[in-house]
Amino acid sequence: MVVEKALIVDPIEGEYTGDVEFEEEIINIKRYDCTPKYVLMPGFVDTHTHGYMGIDCMNANKEDFEKWAEYVSKDGVTYLFPTTVSHNFEKLNKVTENFSSANHHSLIGLHFEGPFINPKKSGAQNIGYIKDYEGKLPSLKNVKIITFAPEINGAERLLKSLPNNIVPSIGHSDAPYELFKKFLETGVNRITHFPNALSSMHHRNIGIVGGVFLHKPYVELIVDFIHSSPEFIKLVYDIIGPPKIILITDSISATGLKDGIYELGDLLVKVKDKTAKLEDGTLAGSTLRYIEGVKNFKKITNCSLQELSLVSSFNALQNLNFNMGRIKKGYIAKFVLLNENLDILKIFQ
Amino acid sequence: MVVEKALIVDPIEGEYTGDVEFEEEIINIKRYDCTPKYVLMPGFVDTHTHGYMGIDCMNANKEDFEKWAEYVSKDGVTYLFPTTVSHNFEKLNKVTENFSSANHHSLIGLHFEGPFINPKKSGAQNIGYIKDYEGKLPSLKNVKIITFAPEINGAERLLKSLPNNIVPSIGHSDAPYELFKKFLETGVNRITHFPNALSSMHHRNIGIVGGVFLHKPYVELIVDFIHSSPEFIKLVYDIIGPPKIILITDSISATGLKDGIYELGDLLVKVKDKTAKLEDGTLAGSTLRYIEGVKNFKKITNCSLQELSLVSSFNALQNLNFNMGRIKKGYIAKFVLLNENLDILKIFQ
Repeated sequence: MVVEKALIVDPIEGEYTGDVEFEEEIINIKRYDCTPKYVLMPGFVDTHTHGYMGIDCMNANKEDFEKWAEYVSKDGVTYLFPTTVSHNFEKLNKVTENFSSANHHSLIGLHFEGPFINPKKSGAQNIGYIKDYEGKLPSLKNVKIITFAPEINGAERLLKSLPNNIVPSIGHSDAPYELFKKFLETGVNRITHFPNALSSMHHRNIGIVGGVFLHKPYVELIVDFIHSSPEFIKLVYDIIGPPKIILITDSISATGLKDGIYELGDLLVKVKDKTAKLEDGTLAGSTLRYIEGVKNFKKITNCSLQELSLVSSFNALQNLNFNMGRIKKGYIAKFVLLNENLDILKIFQ
Repeated sequence: MVVEKALIVDPIEGEYTGDVEFEEEIINIKRYDCTPKYVLMPGFVDTHTHGYMGIDCMNANKEDFEKWAEYVSKDGVTYLFPTTVSHNFEKLNKVTENFSSANHHSLIGLHFEGPFINPKKSGAQNIGYIKDYEGKLPSLKNVKIITFAPEINGAERLLKSLPNNIVPSIGHSDAPYELFKKFLETGVNRITHFPNALSSMHHRNIGIVGGVFLHKPYVELIVDFIHSSPEFIKLVYDIIGPPKIILITDSISATGLKDGIYELGDLLVKVKDKTAKLEDGTLAGSTLRYIEGVKNFKKITNCSLQELSLVSSFNALQNLNFNMGRIKKGYIAKFVLLNENLDILKIFQ
C-alpha cells in the first residue's frame, strides 16, 4: 500500500512531503517536495478511557473489548488502554481475564485507575472500593499503567511490588509537595488526568499542581474544555511543553451516545450537554472523542503538527516503553490520514 | 572616583571585568580581562516598602523619610518608593506633603497601595478605609505607582483619571481571569506582591495567578520564603522569567528591629521570628531587608548576576519609565559593591 503526496508528520523528524509505502510495517518513505493532498500522522493512542458507545471497561466481555477497539478507530485511535475504576480484586481480576481473552491489534494494555488512591480525592470513584496497599494485588496481567496516590499507607511497598513493565502514575492524590517530590525522586514520571483530583497549587505549598509545573513529568490531559479551561490548557502547553503532554479522553460508556443516565463502574452518571457528572455534581469522566481533543488542543495552543503527533501518540508510547508511534522505515504502520482541518479521512492499521 | 578590577554587572550588556570611573554620572568604563576583586551592580530599587527601623510611611515626617533613605542604603537600596496603606484622603494628602518636603536623592516617588482595592482581599489593610472610586482622588504629587483592584466600582474611570506618569498595579484583587485579562488589554502591566492577596489559580478559572503565568506582566515579588515558598519563587523564575520580576521587600517599620508589637497604618502588627502578622494571623508585610531578598532569590533560582541586576534594579526602573539602573557611560552612578557571597562592601550614590 502507498500513500502518495502526503504531508508526513513524524514526532522526531518533523513534517515533510512525500510517499509512504507500507504493509504491516513501513517499507519505504520517498521524500520530495510537493503540494500535499493530506496529512499523515501516527495513529492516536488513548491511555485512559473507561468506555465508549455503551461499553464499560468494568463489565466488558471479550467481544466488547474488540468492538470498542474497532469503534474508536473512527476517532483515529489505533492503540487504547481500557481503564478500570476502583473495585474489589475479584472484579478487577475478571476485567483482566476478559481483556486478556480479547484479540485486537489495538488492545495492548490495561490502565488500573485505583484502587490505591486517596478517598478524599475520589472524583467519580466509589469510595467503598478505595483502599491502602496491604501487600496484596489483583492480577496484573496485561496491565501497563497503575494510578495510585503517594499518601496511601503502603505506597512505597506498592511501587516496589510492581513489575518493571508497569508504569505508576500519580492520581487522585492530595499529597503535599514534599511527598510528591519524594516519589518523583524514586522514578515516578507520570500524572493521571492533570490537574483534576490532585492537590492544588498554593504559594506556600505548591502541591502536586505546582510540583508538576516545576518538575515536568509526563501528564495525562483531557482537552474537552470541561475538565480544564482553555487558558489552563494553554498554560500546560507553555509551561510543561509538548514533549511531556499525553492527550487522553477519560471517556465513559456514554461517549458517542445521547444524553442520559449511564454507569461508570457501580456509580450512576448523568450526561447532559456532553458533560458527565455524578449526582453531587462531581465530574465523572468525559464523553470526549479522541479526535475532538486533538482538534481542541491544536486550536487553543496553535501548536505544530509535529507537536500534535507527540501529544497524541508518541509520548504515550514512549512513556510506556513501546518503540512505536513513528513514521519511519521499519516501524509498525498505524496511521491516521487527515485533511487540513484535521478531519479524519481514513485509518490505516 | 574609580572602582578598579570589578566584575561589572549591567542588566543589558551582562557581566565583564574592568574599571568604572564616575562622579555623579559614569564618566568612563575600561573593559579588560582580570581576576575581579568584587562585584559592581546597579544600586537596588525597592518599589514597595511601608517602613524601616521604626519609621512608618503613614506617619513619617520630612526627616523620617530622609533617615529612611539613608538607612536602607546599607541594604544596597539606592532608590526607594515609600508605600502607603489604605486611609482617608486627608491622611494620604499629609503623607504626600511630608514626602514631597523630604530631600534625598533616593526618594523619587511614592507607591499608593490602595485605597481602591477589594475588601475581600484586604490582607493587612484596614477595611474601614478601602473604597470604590467615586471620581475623587487624593493628592498624587510624586506618586509613581498606585495599587488597585479591577473589580472595584469605577476601576476603569480611575485608570482614565490617572496622569500618564503613574503606573497602575493590580493588587488586593479577587478578579476572575476574564476581568483581569480585560485590564491587561487596556495596558495595565504590573502586579502588586504576586501572588499574595490575588485570586488563585483554579483549572476552570485560572484567576489572576494563572493569568499572570499566561500573560507575564511585571510582578512584584517578596522573596522572604514566608510570603511564598522557595518552590513558588522557583516557579515564578521559570515561568515568568527574570525580565519581568521586580524584587520588593514590603517591609514594615519593625524591619531592622527586635520582635515585638508594631504599627502598620492604624493596625497593630505582632512580629515574631521576623514574621509580621495581624492578630488574626494574616501576614502584615515583612521584615525583609532588600539584600536578604536578593540573596534568597539567587540561592533558590541559581540565576546569573545579570539576571539579578534585572530583578533588583533595572526592571523596577524600566517599568516606571526611568532611564536608569545601568552601568554604562552617561548613566547616574548609583552602585552597590559586593563580594562573591553578595555581602555588601560599599554603596556608591
